[in-house]
Amino acid sequence: MEEEALFNYVNQHSEEYIHRLREAVALDSVSSDPNKRSRCLDMANYICKWIEKLGGKPIVKHIGKQTFPDGQVLDYPPILFGDFTVDTKEKPVLLAYCHYDVQPADIQDGWKFDPFQLVEEQGKLYGRGATDDKGPLLGWLWAIEAYKQLGIPLPVNLLLCFEGMEESGSTGLDRVIEEESKVGGLLSNVKYVCITDNYWLTEHRPCLTYGLRGIVYFQVHIEGPKMDLHSGLFGGLVNEPMNDLIHLFSSLTDIHGNILIPQVMDSVAPVTKEEELLYEKILFDPQLLKQEAGQVSHLRESNKVKLLMNRWRFPSLSFHGIQGAFSGPGEKTVIPGKVTGKFSIRLVPHQQPEEIARYVENYLRQQMNKIQSGNVLQVEWRGASPWLADYHNSNFQAARSAFQKVYQVDPDLTREGGSIPITNTFQEYLGGEIYEQTQLYTRNQSYYSLYE
Amino acid sequence: MEEEALFNYVNQHSEEYIHRLREAVALDSVSSDPNKRSRCLDMANYICKWIEKLGGKPIVKHIGKQTFPDGQVLDYPPILFGDFTVDTKEKPVLLAYCHYDVQPADIQDGWKFDPFQLVEEQGKLYGRGATDDKGPLLGWLWAIEAYKQLGIPLPVNLLLCFEGMEESGSTGLDRVIEEESKVGGLLSNVKYVCITDNYWLTEHRPCLTYGLRGIVYFQVHIEGPKMDLHSGLFGGLVNEPMNDLIHLFSSLTDIHGNILIPQVMDSVAPVTKEEELLYEKILFDPQLLKQEAGQVSHLRESNKVKLLMNRWRFPSLSFHGIQGAFSGPGEKTVIPGKVTGKFSIRLVPHQQPEEIARYVENYLRQQMNKIQSGNVLQVEWRGASPWLADYHNSNFQAARSAFQKVYQVDPDLTREGGSIPITNTFQEYLGGEIYEQTQLYTRNQSYYSLYE
Repeated sequence: MEEEALFNYVNQHSEEYIHRLREAVALDSVSSDPNKRSRCLDMANYICKWIEKLGGKPIVKHIGKQTFPDGQVLDYPPILFGDFTVDTKEKPVLLAYCHYDVQPADIQDGWKFDPFQLVEEQGKLYGRGATDDKGPLLGWLWAIEAYKQLGIPLPVNLLLCFEGMEESGSTGLDRVIEEESKVGGLLSNVKYVCITDNYWLTEHRPCLTYGLRGIVYFQVHIEGPKMDLHSGLFGGLVNEPMNDLIHLFSSLTDIHGNILIPQVMDSVAPVTKEEELLYEKILFDPQLLKQEAGQVSHLRESNKVKLLMNRWRFPSLSFHGIQGAFSGPGEKTVIPGKVTGKFSIRLVPHQQPEEIARYVENYLRQQMNKIQSGNVLQVEWRGASPWLADYHNSNFQAARSAFQKVYQVDPDLTREGGSIPITNTFQEYLGGEIYEQTQLYTRNQSYYSLYE
Repeated sequence: MEEEALFNYVNQHSEEYIHRLREAVALDSVSSDPNKRSRCLDMANYICKWIEKLGGKPIVKHIGKQTFPDGQVLDYPPILFGDFTVDTKEKPVLLAYCHYDVQPADIQDGWKFDPFQLVEEQGKLYGRGATDDKGPLLGWLWAIEAYKQLGIPLPVNLLLCFEGMEESGSTGLDRVIEEESKVGGLLSNVKYVCITDNYWLTEHRPCLTYGLRGIVYFQVHIEGPKMDLHSGLFGGLVNEPMNDLIHLFSSLTDIHGNILIPQVMDSVAPVTKEEELLYEKILFDPQLLKQEAGQVSHLRESNKVKLLMNRWRFPSLSFHGIQGAFSGPGEKTVIPGKVTGKFSIRLVPHQQPEEIARYVENYLRQQMNKIQSGNVLQVEWRGASPWLADYHNSNFQAARSAFQKVYQVDPDLTREGGSIPITNTFQEYLGGEIYEQTQLYTRNQSYYSLYE
């Protein structure tokens, strides 16, 4: 049977895969560091050579030059495509997205080992990029290799899309996707998308992500005095913009952080019975979450389902900070003349950024009218929509059955609390069925978790 | 008559005084700038030479070396005393305090003329330090000169005290005052203190200051997660320290800025009938205050007496800012793990810093208990007492009659909203009678306002 042959091949070559992952981790492709830019290009070359070797067509999209704060001007890491078209008439096109750049890492940050040397300890592999996202990226290549070596044709037309700026804002990617999605473009026939750049909730069960929260980020400007004032001379005389802002902010949430803005919660999709059952089945330990959340003593919920729903399918409001006020250490007694408060609301279906922003702005204006300080309020916002896929669709069914075969377990169907903007870009231009997962290596029927 | 002779002498020499002020302004003694440190020393020399020339004994107190952030190590500008003792048995000792350093100034800050070239325009003299505080400082010297030239003995034993670090925290002054106040010390016989380092409320009437507000400065630390968190992943799960802080802060004041902390207002001295009458007589225009306060459209009071009382004799609370939260331009979606909110309360008699700090801390702890976030509150404070003199005392009476003679007007008796820490130091170590004023040059019976 083809499948068994493939699994055997993969298991027989696991040592080799680890060796190659070690090579990739050692290419310290930190996209934010100009001194590591050549390593990003090395990593891109490493990938292109493998695409070619495996019979694919590497397509390199250059996206121009980057000027760094220190004045250096360097080429951006290119966007790489690997075209493994086998039969566009009979088989659909599956786009696989990963990134080959990594976050910075230094042994002094608290790593036990050199972060760019892959180390195995107690069945776990440690190294920067091992799971985010070089392991998943290479996984696609070795899957293709196994088909090729066994002489089995690929079951789909695979189109790989690997970017090198994901950790630095995905520069250029939107534009390339938009262009290549047009008729005749590289992506014009894509039917399915698989993003392998996400985490498992626990070490024990794979996840398939079908939803992401959106966001509206607000900057609330309050302008009073045309300059900063001495609080000895003017304290008690002027209506201080900071006092306005503190009271505006405190009207947005209750003391526990629940959103108080009228209408904002109205468009949140009601929880279905099916969803509740889904959440109950998910493997997740609130106690471990406390550790993950910086060793907090309390969480906002103790119940697993409520916690996960708070993360994934309910909005949340976070205050991020204040610009224009004193933010240094020590004491400064100034009355700031103009302050900008920053907060964001994570959005869930069916909240749309424009609508939520309108409610928030109206409410802020109402509150400001009550204060009657004479200071001027200005509200600025930027938003991204939430994303939700139908996990009953064929793409998700295929992914679920793949997980069942490899891990002998049904994956948890999860959402994410954050936004992955590229998801909305794919959705907008390709309109296809998307799912997100983290791939894991298999080895002698057990598997390695990939840690960073 | 001696007095008339003195006035005539002063009026006849006004051009010379302006010339000498021009020399002093040109010595750009900016105490905060290491590159201008030699100019501070030049200014100290200039003063010492004059003290000597006028028959006084200059005493130079060196206060050690300063290490600047750029690594330069330079001598601090010395504290200068000028001893003009004439007869310690019959006449009291009057200590006159001024400072010879200035704030930085640059034509690019919006000055019409080079700030270190004294310029006369429409009967006004412009130049950095002209009024704060070189004009008043030199005024003492020219008064002595007039007595000397006319062969009239000084009516008091004058002890000048001129520092060169006032604009940079008065480094070393407290210690020198403490030491020299001991039996046998330079200041041990001081009976009266006159601080000439303050402003007039308007251009039209001199002021005598008999009170200053104190201050308690609070740093409110709230610690939750041991690190900053991603608001996508943790928004809705953790009790965010910023949410706690926003609600603590908003409980301190109402939307108009009035203090809501229980007991804090209880120890404010009641307004007397005499005070009300005093405030009503003061020359002050709320419309001009709007300009001064950065062109604000609204003040917290429209009535003159209420405004002045808010500035001088009622407490006020100002929020200064938040440390540890995002304070830069643009957007950052982090949940800060630890934040420090900063605010201060200006104190008036009979509020004492320790007492007010206790009320505030208790209240903050009560509010935090309501929130039950599990985050840890820590309150840090530092305070300075308010200062209030009895303007019926002989020192004030002497100053008032001097103003009446020179300006033919009773000066306004004013307080200040800010703190001048040196006042409390003099009060503590000398225990004498203190008043504060701004001296103005007289010229042909009219006078120059000194502008910066």
